[in-house]
Amino acid sequence: MTTLQGVDPRTGAFVGRPVPETTTRELDLILDLAVSARRTCAASNVEDRAAWLRAVAASLEIGRAMLVELADFETALGELRLNGELNRMIAQLELFVEVIMDGSYQQVIIDDANTHATPPRPGLRRSLRAIGPVGIWAASNFPFAFGVIGGDSVSAIAAGCPVIVKAHPSQPSLSALLGALVADSLSEAGAPPGVFATIHGMPAGEALITDRRLKAASFTGSVQGGRALFDLASRRAEPIPFFGELGSINPVFVTAAAARVRTQELVEGLVTSVSQGVGQFCTKPGLVFVPANTGIAGLVSAAMSSQPAGAMLNCSIKSGFESGADAIAALDGVRMSESSGAVSESGSWVMPRVATTTLDTFMLNMDVLAEECFGPVTVIVEYSDPAGLVDAARALPGSLTATIHGEADDSQDLIFCRALTDVLQDSVGRMIWNGWPTGVAVAWGMQHGGPFPASTNSATTSVGAMAIARWLRPITFQSFPETLMPPSLTGGASRGLIRHNGAPIVMTEGHCTPTPPAEARS
Amino acid sequence: MTTLQGVDPRTGAFVGRPVPETTTRELDLILDLAVSARRTCAASNVEDRAAWLRAVAASLEIGRAMLVELADFETALGELRLNGELNRMIAQLELFVEVIMDGSYQQVIIDDANTHATPPRPGLRRSLRAIGPVGIWAASNFPFAFGVIGGDSVSAIAAGCPVIVKAHPSQPSLSALLGALVADSLSEAGAPPGVFATIHGMPAGEALITDRRLKAASFTGSVQGGRALFDLASRRAEPIPFFGELGSINPVFVTAAAARVRTQELVEGLVTSVSQGVGQFCTKPGLVFVPANTGIAGLVSAAMSSQPAGAMLNCSIKSGFESGADAIAALDGVRMSESSGAVSESGSWVMPRVATTTLDTFMLNMDVLAEECFGPVTVIVEYSDPAGLVDAARALPGSLTATIHGEADDSQDLIFCRALTDVLQDSVGRMIWNGWPTGVAVAWGMQHGGPFPASTNSATTSVGAMAIARWLRPITFQSFPETLMPPSLTGGASRGLIRHNGAPIVMTEGHCTPTPPAEARS
Repeated sequence: MTTLQGVDPRTGAFVGRPVPETTTRELDLILDLAVSARRTCAASNVEDRAAWLRAVAASLEIGRAMLVELADFETALGELRLNGELNRMIAQLELFVEVIMDGSYQQVIIDDANTHATPPRPGLRRSLRAIGPVGIWAASNFPFAFGVIGGDSVSAIAAGCPVIVKAHPSQPSLSALLGALVADSLSEAGAPPGVFATIHGMPAGEALITDRRLKAASFTGSVQGGRALFDLASRRAEPIPFFGELGSINPVFVTAAAARVRTQELVEGLVTSVSQGVGQFCTKPGLVFVPANTGIAGLVSAAMSSQPAGAMLNCSIKSGFESGADAIAALDGVRMSESSGAVSESGSWVMPRVATTTLDTFMLNMDVLAEECFGPVTVIVEYSDPAGLVDAARALPGSLTATIHGEADDSQDLIFCRALTDVLQDSVGRMIWNGWPTGVAVAWGMQHGGPFPASTNSATTSVGAMAIARWLRPITFQSFPETLMPPSLTGGASRGLIRHNGAPIVMTEGHCTPTPPAEARS
Repeated sequence: MTTLQGVDPRTGAFVGRPVPETTTRELDLILDLAVSARRTCAASNVEDRAAWLRAVAASLEIGRAMLVELADFETALGELRLNGELNRMIAQLELFVEVIMDGSYQQVIIDDANTHATPPRPGLRRSLRAIGPVGIWAASNFPFAFGVIGGDSVSAIAAGCPVIVKAHPSQPSLSALLGALVADSLSEAGAPPGVFATIHGMPAGEALITDRRLKAASFTGSVQGGRALFDLASRRAEPIPFFGELGSINPVFVTAAAARVRTQELVEGLVTSVSQGVGQFCTKPGLVFVPANTGIAGLVSAAMSSQPAGAMLNCSIKSGFESGADAIAALDGVRMSESSGAVSESGSWVMPRVATTTLDTFMLNMDVLAEECFGPVTVIVEYSDPAGLVDAARALPGSLTATIHGEADDSQDLIFCRALTDVLQDSVGRMIWNGWPTGVAVAWGMQHGGPFPASTNSATTSVGAMAIARWLRPITFQSFPETLMPPSLTGGASRGLIRHNGAPIVMTEGHCTPTPPAEARS
């Protein structure tokens, strides 16, 4: 029997008991159960699913001490950060309770029959329906928020889809505990068997993504791993949607005016954003354009070299970081900061690093310098020619975020910021002004996704209320008797109704208020 | 120079002048122009785009006589049908004017900054933005509604995307005329150059789908052709969304009660739905389950054999139809109706056909019988065991539609219909009650799409108001100055605002009405 073994990133020692890989036969049973739960789940009412999610939140709160301890053993992220992340995970569960109770996620549109139209229009009722069993690949860098019961799993359960989570291999014990807590609390809250399962091991993962019973999948991780799964999902006889969040360079642009006014604040902010969590954030700023001759690059290098070493999540991530950083350092015209501290041989300790180069060198080496290097490293590009910077912005690959540090009160600076904003909108999912991309608010208005390689489906988000849309597809009932339609489509007032005979609708306390008929508008 | 030549399906004679294939150099220029129009288009205001669409509608009305004549030459669909389809195309342009003027398609969500939250929440403003240049593969069976300026092109222009249409090879002259009319009217209405172009020939199409400047594509046609394009789109270094509508069997289920009460009506309705337009509809019912011993199969066969021969769109579609129908006829246990009339040797004339079989034979031969055969043929499956019919429904591949003919007043029948409805929802995009799937209303509540092979992206529709969503992706502005955000996100009242600080919003005559704060709801 093949097993997965947790390793303490701080020491390299084994932690926890070995967790067996899921067998072919186990996966088969899990998928059969998920299929059998599919219709019950899709047809369940939102109050029931809200109760399921609340039960999960309660079980996480009860298990908090053990979860944080185990997570810290397997990730070395520290108890402070992990407690905060657990809070975020619970807030996420509460957000999706709010989302489904609100109901508009169902996007119900009703067109009454119109026999006087040419041609006559039949009655049409459209809403969104859960797509069926989904596979979720847990990420390692957020063991709670993007883990076994992270935003992907929660939004899928909220949508009414049975969920099969592929656990991250470097967190076997935590994943097993989380998986058991979630499965038990769902079951106690009355969710049907098959609504949630956790699987372990790469063979089971490959079998899952290619199984015809699976209807969609999500993933957060490396470009290489995500692309391989995307290809498997796309090459199936019946291709399925694959919501992958892969790599993101998250460029930051500092204008001359901002550099002049806020040098020290920028240096401190950048060092924190690059080094926190040992740089293991999808939104870590990997590329920072600063005006030449401001001394910012030197200040950042100096500040970074006084940062402590950090243990990365596992040895494979550490070696990926080191080879990535070495490839950057090996380029002609790139200066890499020296690692000053001594780093332990055991575990997966690394020192943060800073590379500095010019805009010309950057443009010649975009294949290396505009590609994400996961971990505590950033590339500072010094520019002299603002027009050249706009060209660089135009040439960048897709990213989750782009950040501009500028001075809105300075009219000259504003013109330059507008040029950057215009160009950057084409390639990113979130634009940040005078802030840092790390720290992703869980809110209705969040967008966490972007053009490839940031995501394999830039029309969706993996964080925030709209993440639920990934797990739903529209279905229209034409001329159907009320008794045969789903409850969301029947009755005079529907919770999810957004439009009736072309006019928008708003829901207030369970009652629909149709706006005036279309003729009266526009 | 390679050229495309129109052929009269009624005679096989050449019609119109040869149209040259688009060269590599021409395509390169077209793509460069599209890229240069990308940002202007995405940032254009809805009033301007509405004016562009209205100008296109006006030019089609002016060109009506010539368009219908040319379309009839190249498709043999007849002037009555083609005039009706042109009306539909104009109505489609009007619908998308309504959609963008309404504004909610932008799905604006605003979360104000909240410094008291833990962690503090920055201000977030999210809306949808046009994804950039898109490629649209025109279909042959609706030369207007799914052609050069069909629903795909219109929804993409409405969204603010530059459009490059790959013309259907069997309608070169019509496509060239439509392309010129549309490009001219857009230009006269002030649309930027590059917003619309038509290309001809398969080599140009392959170059288009694999070009990095293209950001999405749509297609309506065969499973084989659509799958090949989907694979090209998915295998790119930067994969792009591909909205393909491929094959659909559109099953129809007739209950015993319905068969008893409405025998004649069912027979006439089915014959019309299968044979109209020479069966060349994506929603043609290809599979009809009827109770055994009702005589319906015999009545349909008899009625179908009195239908006239029809000229299919081209010789390749004719031969696909004939080999598909022959494969059905060749199965053991399947009875194919005799073609009674004599069919002309020239052109692409065919006779409608009807196959009859049992549920057992159907279940053994689903690889042939549950696959679309494009053209005027349907397979009638006689069933005795209602439970077996539910199993068959469960085993069907994805379809655009499923239809149930039942008697809602008959409580026994209703139970059976509910079982069918429950199962069919998993595999179709539209459920029809006591009607026929052909005839797709252009409306807010329409869904035209479904699980593969009906569509390569079941979360989207290619008909109806929501078709615009395919060409948009979300972008969030965090803590941004108003002056740098797009107009849709600024000012107190935004046309597209749907939610503010978690509460839904409705727009009435240009003013926003926020609902009571979240605490007061639920």
